[in-house]
Amino acid sequence: MKQLFFTPGPSALYFTVEQHIKNALNEQIGAISHRSNTFTQLYSHTESMLRQLLHIPDDFHVLFLSSATEIWERIIQNCVMHESTHYTYGAFSERFYQTALDYHKKAQKLVYQEQEGPQFNPVDWSKKTELIALTQNETSTGLSVPDIELHALRDLTTAQIAVDAVSGLPYYQADFTSIDHLYFSVQKGFGLPAGLGVWIVSPKAVAAYRQIKESGHSTGSYHDLGELIEKAEKKQTPETPNVFSIYLLGKVAEDMLNKGMKQILNETIYKSTVLYEAIKQSPYLKPYIEAEKNQSKTVIVTETPYATEIIQVLKAKGMVIGSGYGKNKNSHIRIANFPAHSKEQIELLADYLLDLRL
Amino acid sequence: MKQLFFTPGPSALYFTVEQHIKNALNEQIGAISHRSNTFTQLYSHTESMLRQLLHIPDDFHVLFLSSATEIWERIIQNCVMHESTHYTYGAFSERFYQTALDYHKKAQKLVYQEQEGPQFNPVDWSKKTELIALTQNETSTGLSVPDIELHALRDLTTAQIAVDAVSGLPYYQADFTSIDHLYFSVQKGFGLPAGLGVWIVSPKAVAAYRQIKESGHSTGSYHDLGELIEKAEKKQTPETPNVFSIYLLGKVAEDMLNKGMKQILNETIYKSTVLYEAIKQSPYLKPYIEAEKNQSKTVIVTETPYATEIIQVLKAKGMVIGSGYGKNKNSHIRIANFPAHSKEQIELLADYLLDLRL
Repeated sequence: MKQLFFTPGPSALYFTVEQHIKNALNEQIGAISHRSNTFTQLYSHTESMLRQLLHIPDDFHVLFLSSATEIWERIIQNCVMHESTHYTYGAFSERFYQTALDYHKKAQKLVYQEQEGPQFNPVDWSKKTELIALTQNETSTGLSVPDIELHALRDLTTAQIAVDAVSGLPYYQADFTSIDHLYFSVQKGFGLPAGLGVWIVSPKAVAAYRQIKESGHSTGSYHDLGELIEKAEKKQTPETPNVFSIYLLGKVAEDMLNKGMKQILNETIYKSTVLYEAIKQSPYLKPYIEAEKNQSKTVIVTETPYATEIIQVLKAKGMVIGSGYGKNKNSHIRIANFPAHSKEQIELLADYLLDLRL
Repeated sequence: MKQLFFTPGPSALYFTVEQHIKNALNEQIGAISHRSNTFTQLYSHTESMLRQLLHIPDDFHVLFLSSATEIWERIIQNCVMHESTHYTYGAFSERFYQTALDYHKKAQKLVYQEQEGPQFNPVDWSKKTELIALTQNETSTGLSVPDIELHALRDLTTAQIAVDAVSGLPYYQADFTSIDHLYFSVQKGFGLPAGLGVWIVSPKAVAAYRQIKESGHSTGSYHDLGELIEKAEKKQTPETPNVFSIYLLGKVAEDMLNKGMKQILNETIYKSTVLYEAIKQSPYLKPYIEAEKNQSKTVIVTETPYATEIIQVLKAKGMVIGSGYGKNKNSHIRIANFPAHSKEQIELLADYLLDLRL
């Protein structure tokens, strides 16, 4: 029997993916050359669908890499000469900070409570910082930074702003006037098999890269930002990429556009309300993030002394939900609410949560 | 109508891949967590099949990255502190050399004729070189380094030896006593969709990494060799990997083991003989690599003044062959002879080559 995956990534495949994979096999997408016209057309389609779906400005580059984890590294290698500042309030924002240390940058960490999230205040960061990093949606805790706070950061700094939107997109409607780096991987909100990361880069970030390059610092090799951009302008990638995944991302983005982002947004809000209501009513559950403004709509995390039992009970009903992350493995459960999860599935899951007798 | 792809990578999918992809969808491989038991079992299976197929010693690590292009970078970042030596005789060996320069290494280039290949002589390389890089099978030219010459290098140096076997495996039967780094990507001889590279690493290479790490040099971040090994020992990867591809590689390696490597080797030799015979007999074609000992059995490259016409004629018959690489785009054709290409297909292709009237 097939299971319903509510894990926060990899998660359920978007409901059209299976058919697109079959079409890809019929179209022999796995065999085409990454230097052929067939590939450049496929690449252009995916880029165009993403630009429409996420309202990406024309002067921003859309680049395909292998994971969001890789993109942390490429941001640091290419766009930070000396100093970066990292707001950390969970495992993934912490890992980006560690990446900067791994590359021997003078990285500044501003630690905030993982249940409360960051406060942006210019007195806190080094005057010489080149980049400020934050996580729009912490997959490890279910904390979301409200759009209005995130986008207010632009007025406080001239540094590059890097936003990890791995588990927030496509629900999160980014305002690119406030962002220099936006990135995600496809196995979360886009409902695709893992193996592709997307890096969206502003002209300001490119200017920072050019300066570092000219100064003679190493900026990596095949995924040097200049190489990536040069190939992207030809609708190609420096290496043979995950062609299948670039194809699938374009198809799913097109499906989402056809469905309409307004409907996807409304459904996401409705489904998250259903889940938070069930959590509120359950004697066994408590939202880990208390302030409503910080409660993620896409990764819902609850505290519970019965995490293991609840995961087991739901598994027996064919539903796979996530355990807590890291130190919270046995005291949290995490539930993804992505476009791949239907209203009916989420309602059923909420009913099961309300029916728990432990 | 489906086409037959004889391009030298991406190439035709191995004949069982389509069914394995359908099975993977049924088994929900695209949705499973990369930290789950299901994943670690899948990973173990793939590793085990590869170890059997390629006779990888127990003390070598088998690591999954995103492409062979990435592996060039990781070898340089992790295992070369100051100096590396690169035998170059084609586009891909040249790119590995460029990667070393990108990371500001003192890289030495030993340039050989691309039609003749390298001669190994210890007087040629710097006494302080830490790594000697060569390409077992140059995909750009169809030059293959004879096993006996390649493996004789071990007696000439104590430096690490890195062998690019991207388009030679699994036909090439590596002797790991002579190799510290062997790597490939899956879209060539393994007949899989692109998006995965495999890096096989010796204890000596790991020792070199440990020394560099201890000296305080940066060795990258998530794909730092230590991180990769630590996760590999748990049958995991540092990031969410291309799970689908790791699954498919295990299944195809298993199919090849079941078929028997002896038969695959014999068929490869037979098919390459058929192709070289047709080339010899054709008035329009001439093998680019003259010495038989250097003629690749897996990527067959011929010179011809009619490259564009021949590619068109074959395309009209449903066969896609490769153009020349780089500067040879219009004066070469390249034909892959991988396990995915059946004897019947290659015989038919050879007949078409003999029937050419230009």
